[in-house]
Order: sequence, then C-alpha cells, then structure tokens
Amino acid sequence: MARRRKRSGLVAGVDLGGTKVTFGIVNEDGKILAMDKRKTKATTGIEGVLDRVVEGLERACTEAESELGDLDAVGIGAPSAVDFEEGVVIHAGNLGWKNVPLRRLLEDRLDLPVLVDNDVNVAAWGEFTAGAARGWPDALGVWVGTGIGSGLILGGNVWRGAFHTAGELGQMVLQPRGGLGRRTVEEHCSRLAMIRSMETLIGSHPQSRMRTALSRTPEAGPIGSSVIADAYRAGDELVLRVVDDAADLLGLAIANAVTLLSVRGVVLGGGVTDALGKPFVERVRESFEWHVFPATLRKCRIVAADLGDSAGIVGAAALARAHIVGRG
Amino acid sequence: MARRRKRSGLVAGVDLGGTKVTFGIVNEDGKILAMDKRKTKATTGIEGVLDRVVEGLERACTEAESELGDLDAVGIGAPSAVDFEEGVVIHAGNLGWKNVPLRRLLEDRLDLPVLVDNDVNVAAWGEFTAGAARGWPDALGVWVGTGIGSGLILGGNVWRGAFHTAGELGQMVLQPRGGLGRRTVEEHCSRLAMIRSMETLIGSHPQSRMRTALSRTPEAGPIGSSVIADAYRAGDELVLRVVDDAADLLGLAIANAVTLLSVRGVVLGGGVTDALGKPFVERVRESFEWHVFPATLRKCRIVAADLGDSAGIVGAAALARAHIVGRG
Repeated sequence: MARRRKRSGLVAGVDLGGTKVTFGIVNEDGKILAMDKRKTKATTGIEGVLDRVVEGLERACTEAESELGDLDAVGIGAPSAVDFEEGVVIHAGNLGWKNVPLRRLLEDRLDLPVLVDNDVNVAAWGEFTAGAARGWPDALGVWVGTGIGSGLILGGNVWRGAFHTAGELGQMVLQPRGGLGRRTVEEHCSRLAMIRSMETLIGSHPQSRMRTALSRTPEAGPIGSSVIADAYRAGDELVLRVVDDAADLLGLAIANAVTLLSVRGVVLGGGVTDALGKPFVERVRESFEWHVFPATLRKCRIVAADLGDSAGIVGAAALARAHIVGRG
Repeated sequence: MARRRKRSGLVAGVDLGGTKVTFGIVNEDGKILAMDKRKTKATTGIEGVLDRVVEGLERACTEAESELGDLDAVGIGAPSAVDFEEGVVIHAGNLGWKNVPLRRLLEDRLDLPVLVDNDVNVAAWGEFTAGAARGWPDALGVWVGTGIGSGLILGGNVWRGAFHTAGELGQMVLQPRGGLGRRTVEEHCSRLAMIRSMETLIGSHPQSRMRTALSRTPEAGPIGSSVIADAYRAGDELVLRVVDDAADLLGLAIANAVTLLSVRGVVLGGGVTDALGKPFVERVRESFEWHVFPATLRKCRIVAADLGDSAGIVGAAALARAHIVGRG
C-alpha cells in the first residue's frame, strides 16, 4: 500500500477479547503513550463492536495528543484462528463471529492499514519483541487463563501453519483415557478446569476456604484467579493440590512441545499465571525439566511474562509496525 | 567455498545407520544413478567407519561411471542430534559417537564440501522434495522402526530448533502415569515396544503364531517388521491388538503435533510402516482425525512415504545440493 502521508511513528495496538477491548497508542520506541478500555458487548453484533473499536481508538489517540489520521497502522489481536493473509477472523466463539473479514471492515472505517492476528500470537509477539523473550531466536508463549492459548515464534516470525491454527497447545490430548471433558491440557490446567477439580474434591477437603466460593450460584460467575491465588498463598490444601496438579500437567505439555520444537524458551502469561506468580512458574518448570528430552533441552528457559495485560497491545502494534510500516 | 572445478551436477547422499551405511549418486533430476551398501561396523571406531564411508562413495561413483572428484557435494544423514551449522554429530548412541566433527573429518578425507544432518531430517526432506510430500508447504515426517524418529519441515526448510534437537516426537510423554519405560510414544509404538507388548500379552493369547518367535533366545535378535506384518495380515489376534493399540497412540501423538503446528500433512515411513502398509496408515489416520483440533485440521493429510529405503539418500543429496551447490 502506498503511503498517503508522512509517517508519525505512531501505531495502535488493539486487544479484542470476548468481554473487553483494550487499546494502546505505541511510539517507535515501543512505549505506550495512551490507553483506553471498553466493554466488547458482543451481543450488539459486528457493527456494534466495530463502533466501539473506532471509539476506543479515537479516545486513545486523543489521550496521546494525536488523532486517528496520524496513525501509521493498526494491529489487532482477536480471540480466534485468523487467516492472517486475508485478515479474516475464522471462528471467534465468544464473539459469535464466523468468517468475519475484520481487516477489510476496519480499513473501510478507519482509512488506515490494519493487521489482524490471533490474540495469543500477538501477545507472544509482544513478549518476543519487548518482553521476557527479547533476544531469543524463537519462543513458545503459553497463556493460562479462563482457557489456555499459546503462540509460536519460530525463526523470528509468528508461526501460523498451513491451516492458520498453529499453537493450540491447550488442545493437546494428554489423558487419552481421561474421559470426555478431561482429556486435553485445557481441560486440566485452565482456570475453569481448576475450579471444576475443586468442585469434585471439596468433599474430601471440608476445611478448605474455597467452600463458600464454590457453593455460589452460577450467576455469580466462575471464581477469579485472584481468589485462587489468595488461597494458594494461604496454603489451602485443596487449592495446593489442584494448582500443583495443573502445573505438573502443564509442565508435561510444554515439555512435549519443546521436545518436538527445540525452542530457546517458553513464556508463561495469562491471568492465572500472573495471579499465582513465581511458585506456579517454578512448579511448571520442575515438571518440564523432568519430562523434556533430550537432557540438553533442560537449558530451555521457562519464564513468566513481563508485559502483563499489555502484551497484546504491544505485540499487535509491533506486528503491525513490522508488517505494514516496515515494508510500506 | 569457492568452486574449484566445473560442476558435474552429481551429488552423493549417504544414510549412515547403526548397522549399515547406504550410498547413492544422485543427478540433477533427483534420479539415483548408482547405489552401494556396506556394514557400519561401529566397533571399529570413527576412523574405521570413515574408511568404509569413503570406500562406499568411491564404489558408488564407479558404478555411476564417474569418480569421487567429480561430485559437487556429499550430504550425509546421521542417527543423532546434529549441530547443522558446524556439521558435528552430537550424540549417536548406536555408533558410540559423542561430539564428532563429521563434516570436517569427511571434508579432509574427500576434498569435497560435505553437509551433515540428522537421519530423519534428511529422510523427511527426501519425501518433501521428491516423495509423498512434494508440493506441500510444510510437513511432519514420522519414521516408525526399531525406534521412532521424526523430522519437521516448516516454511520450506528443515526445522532444527535452538538446540539442534527438533522433531523428537517419539520422546513425547503421553502416558504420564504409565510407569518407567512405558511413558513415551516410542515406548508404546516402536517395533521394540510392540514386541515387548506381545511378550506381556502372550499368556492370554496362547494360540498366537508369535509364540515361537517370542520364545527365541535374545541372541536371535528382536523380531523383524516382516514377521509382525505377516501375522498382522493373517489376522493374529495378539498382533492385531498390539499393532492397533500402537497405531491409535501414534495417531494421538501426531494429532498433538499437528494441533500445535498446523502443518499441511504428515508422511509415515520406516520399516514398521513399510511392512504393515495401508491398514496401519489408515488406523493411524483414524486416530489422528479423532484427536486433532480444530476440526479444519482433519484436512491435514496422513500418507505413507513414497521413497522407502532410499528417502535418506535422496534427501541427503537434495539437502547438500540446496545448501552447498545452490549457493556455491
């Protein structure tokens, strides 16, 4: 695309989630100058969500003492497999979107070049270019939250694969005889899986401080990462058992991925990892080192993410800069 | 390296195994003009093995009505993790080699440019450039024999990873509670694992035609793939059970790899696959389709290798041509 105007050096990064959308204006040094956040309100449909994306971008630009037309590009991470070349969101379950040409729709509205990729791909790219994985030749990013997502950086680029779906570590089957709903990594190690394990085991842990939280009505929503983390730090036996089991299996899954890929390191991010902190990362690493092959791979680094919530924004902006501005 | 002479278009491919070494002279069309095969005799040490490699190459050249000095390059696949940049064999258990600078040693002897890579990497490259995976953008090669090896082709290149060990699908742990010696893919799905399963189960299958073979003394060596395949085709219940279980778990392991990598297809090779043929490949594919995620990945192709025993020769020659002659 021919440049229509002088470059400002400013790129917007957008992290489009099922519940909220966050926006950041990022300068050439990778610094976030301004941010905005708003509810996704997926029930308002595609046009409704796009309205809020444009509003959020405008607001963030104003905060950065700039305006939409000054941006060099917009990068956006979506919770879905994405056809990267076409900028199409293939299937975003928690948005109710299927084959949505997000890049074209946003380019029409913004009159700016737009890049769309999977949300965990862009978060991993953020950590790779400006966070915990900076300087590595390649990396696996694993995000543990409500579910489990992962992103692969191979040979200095996001690896998306022939079917645009690469990185589904959470969908690897580790317990082939585990029964329906209890076979995949995500079904054992995500926040929702941890809560389900606690529900199953609460009977044999009557003293657990989780008893009240677990007996809440479904309307109260699932238990948050911080509640789990507080009980974990307090040494609650039920929570220790469930979290440690999840960390052990996650470490095994990561070992399998590294055994296959021989990457330099693994970044652990997401709400559960951030809340549980260092003891969780250590436990994952121990299991990883136990299971990985060959022994030289124990040198593969397993570290916590650096950028927290803003990995998606930073990564989406950096990816747009590399792909659109860099070759513009 | 500056070219010292006019190019002949001829490249040698060498498949260095623990038991035998095979050689082929390959022309620019990828056709094997002549072959040679000899025992490795690893017990004679590095120099002894190198003597036989040089002899085999000379003999194959003579067969091709050419001579060693006419070759543009030599490519060699070794049963080990290989430092590809340095041409060093890191650890070849069945040769008793550790950190052997094979490229330098052979270049000194041959006065020809030499390329060294892992044996399954070069076999996968052979299938990718001239066999079952020709035309695919990327591929996973899985070789089922005495053990299980695998090679990854990503973005049109062999993926070796930061630690030179990528592709160890056989070392992925799928049965974390399977007990020592019964946890990895290789410990369930290789020929040696199949034989061990038969030994365990023979008591409940007294009619099995494997009874005699299983009661042989260790000196007779492990049961060969063709014996297993004959019993499989004859409908021997013990063998059907063991082979089908192995195929099911292998399909699961391949599904996990494809879920992570989203590659276009998978090539199944190796002695066990070649002997068992189509029913084995079909069974692996069924399990793969059952376990892979998301559903679009069921379009990933699972096919038998085309080149049989010569995949290593063809691949080693093609890789040497691409890396040495191509940029020479």
